[in-house]
Amino acid sequence: MAGKSSPLSGFPELLPAQRFVETEIVETLSRTFELHGFANIETRAVEPLDQLLTKGETSKEVYVLRRLQEDEAGKDSGLGLHFDLTVPFARYVLENAGKLSFPFRRYQIQKVWRGERPQQGRYREFTQADIDVVGQGDLPFHHDIEVARVMAEALAALPIPRATLQINNRKILEGFYRGLGIADPEAVMRVVDKLDKVPAEKLATLLVSDGGATAAQAESVLALAAIRTEDSSFVSQVRDLGVSHDLLTEGLDELAQVIDGCQGIDGVDVVADLRIARGLDYYTGTVFETRLAGYEQLGSICSGGRYDRLASDGRTTYPGVGISLGLSRVVVSLVGDGLTSDRSVPSVVLVAVSDEDSRAASDALATQLRANGVPCEVAAAADKFGKQIRYAERRGIPYVLFSTETGPQIKDIRSGDQVDVDPATWTPPPADVRPRVIQSNEKKEQQ
Amino acid sequence: MAGKSSPLSGFPELLPAQRFVETEIVETLSRTFELHGFANIETRAVEPLDQLLTKGETSKEVYVLRRLQEDEAGKDSGLGLHFDLTVPFARYVLENAGKLSFPFRRYQIQKVWRGERPQQGRYREFTQADIDVVGQGDLPFHHDIEVARVMAEALAALPIPRATLQINNRKILEGFYRGLGIADPEAVMRVVDKLDKVPAEKLATLLVSDGGATAAQAESVLALAAIRTEDSSFVSQVRDLGVSHDLLTEGLDELAQVIDGCQGIDGVDVVADLRIARGLDYYTGTVFETRLAGYEQLGSICSGGRYDRLASDGRTTYPGVGISLGLSRVVVSLVGDGLTSDRSVPSVVLVAVSDEDSRAASDALATQLRANGVPCEVAAAADKFGKQIRYAERRGIPYVLFSTETGPQIKDIRSGDQVDVDPATWTPPPADVRPRVIQSNEKKEQQ
Repeated sequence: MAGKSSPLSGFPELLPAQRFVETEIVETLSRTFELHGFANIETRAVEPLDQLLTKGETSKEVYVLRRLQEDEAGKDSGLGLHFDLTVPFARYVLENAGKLSFPFRRYQIQKVWRGERPQQGRYREFTQADIDVVGQGDLPFHHDIEVARVMAEALAALPIPRATLQINNRKILEGFYRGLGIADPEAVMRVVDKLDKVPAEKLATLLVSDGGATAAQAESVLALAAIRTEDSSFVSQVRDLGVSHDLLTEGLDELAQVIDGCQGIDGVDVVADLRIARGLDYYTGTVFETRLAGYEQLGSICSGGRYDRLASDGRTTYPGVGISLGLSRVVVSLVGDGLTSDRSVPSVVLVAVSDEDSRAASDALATQLRANGVPCEVAAAADKFGKQIRYAERRGIPYVLFSTETGPQIKDIRSGDQVDVDPATWTPPPADVRPRVIQSNEKKEQQ
Repeated sequence: MAGKSSPLSGFPELLPAQRFVETEIVETLSRTFELHGFANIETRAVEPLDQLLTKGETSKEVYVLRRLQEDEAGKDSGLGLHFDLTVPFARYVLENAGKLSFPFRRYQIQKVWRGERPQQGRYREFTQADIDVVGQGDLPFHHDIEVARVMAEALAALPIPRATLQINNRKILEGFYRGLGIADPEAVMRVVDKLDKVPAEKLATLLVSDGGATAAQAESVLALAAIRTEDSSFVSQVRDLGVSHDLLTEGLDELAQVIDGCQGIDGVDVVADLRIARGLDYYTGTVFETRLAGYEQLGSICSGGRYDRLASDGRTTYPGVGISLGLSRVVVSLVGDGLTSDRSVPSVVLVAVSDEDSRAASDALATQLRANGVPCEVAAAADKFGKQIRYAERRGIPYVLFSTETGPQIKDIRSGDQVDVDPATWTPPPADVRPRVIQSNEKKEQQ
């Protein structure tokens, strides 16, 4: 049917063993989110262009759809592919508000598309995993703590390098800047948001030139941004800077509650990091970013925050708090560095075939294994047993089931052990049930 | 963020309780496919237009992508959204042939798009679930039996009305027609493929006018098409028609093997149905269609067959056999008739909150439940208990956990039973672990 192959830059695809890493991550995320009562939804891939274009900056990268057989040549459908999951979720909430129960917790794991220029090495199709809690009219602050904790637990459970969830609160920044007497806190926040890309001394200059701060104010702004603690001791460090403002006090109290609420989760670092600003205007309180150890060049892999106005229909406002994990960004990077799985198939057992006449008998053995929940496949050809074992090895299948004159036997092809077996009751050791995520020594090819 | 809602015809979306029906089906399919050793892959959503347009008819319905910020106004990207999963799979096989192990079994559950005209009530975005086995150079016939059996087991396991898998073999049709002396068997097959839409007497006329058959040949063609058996007794019925041809004999033998191989699966009907032709030229042997009891107006919900040439790079040919289930078509229809689930959230337990000061204690109880694998949520507000119970009821959450002076108690809000509980060890009865798919009496709204 197809006559040639065409890899496309920006549209990553995975081999079966690599894809297992991704499904393992998706399943771990889903399980964690559901343990916390988050319901899964999917939204359509397209939104009307006018909806997609209300958000400013990223709207530049939308893919617009045209029906090939549209009567008027070149006429667009008025639809574009969504570039994130927040715009469609906000629309879904408004559209179904009468049928949803609030506060509404949802998770959504779907592909998004950005019409980036080719040749930039940027993804044009990638999967995001979002959790949000949205309220009708109001949304208590404790949901900020909840969302932070859920994502911290999820990050801790994933087969990825250690993640650091960095949390701040824009009330701290705005209150501190106002307490300093800065006239335009938003302008200062936009400068501080560049801290990762711009050296501190350059930033001090920018704070004066672009942020409208005095040199002394700029120094205080940078002192605040330097604070980073694993517990709520940041509060006293901020107070030591001698700035006071009601909004600052409120922000410090909120951030301390979030950090305290994330204590005791093994496998992830959760820090109060006062340099986190998030450039986007719609965040109004808690803000999140996340770095992955050894993959700092990826920037933040998991970001979000509180918005007091996720959606509004004019009469009712829907505040929300959420985080979005850039799943493909992480998976494609790790897979590129050799993260894969030890099987290219889900099969735990290869059922050998002695000769084609006895294929039905091998099928019957496989049926017994499956009735017991054991994934297996029957050898494609009645080759010599050595060849059938190599067939299993090449796919990473750990066991081969043979029919012998004395009855069925199972061989662990890693150890060579071969024992009598009752296929109706045999189950593999728990570690062999599913393919395992492993680090291969070679960097694997992927697009 | 969003300011208005816009339902779009042809892009169905589900409410959370309805979405659970869909995820339940996806999980059941995945589990069945993996038990048979099929590996999951995903392909990118887009293909180069020239790839999409090689397949003829459906190419008319492609959505073409254009980058909104493309320098030349109206210039397309040369990319279109895939309209099925076969074209991308064939391309994936060619692109990765050196890294895959053949025979390669894969399943793929993804959205596809068709640029249908609006207002036709047709889906423009929908999910398909495909299984295929593909070989390099050759592919033994027993994989036809395998694919039929795997999909039959999957259909039997789904929470849907009873399905009938109708199987035929194009060698039977072509051999029979050739044995009758018909010059253009393809033309006759295309007419027979209309049997569902056109009355038999009209079809006899069409067989003569469009199929080039004599009246006597047309009668035999219709007699063959009328044969339908649940076992391999169709073989003698065909022989009784007195036509012989080597290809017919081969086809009868193959179909009998497939039908025999699908015996003994409860919950699904598998029939040899000799009217099934599949209009598409690329099928070369076994062909599948599937009807759903009570939903015959949907046509075939699950179709496929054997193609001797799934893909070719000029040197090597890749034959395949596969079936594609129209997941959205089934789910959206059933949900429209009231199929839903008994919860809108995954939570089994609502942990009540006595007052905001004790929220941390309620959180701690929830953490104990989750450590035990029990999905739960903590009440959003410290309302009166009656209100918290109604909160649970509205979401279908079956249990509420209270702190009392003598310790935690759990209430089954369906029965009203309330007992002491140790949240560190409590688990719900198996039937309550996950939401249940149920038939609601009212037809639910959906787009």
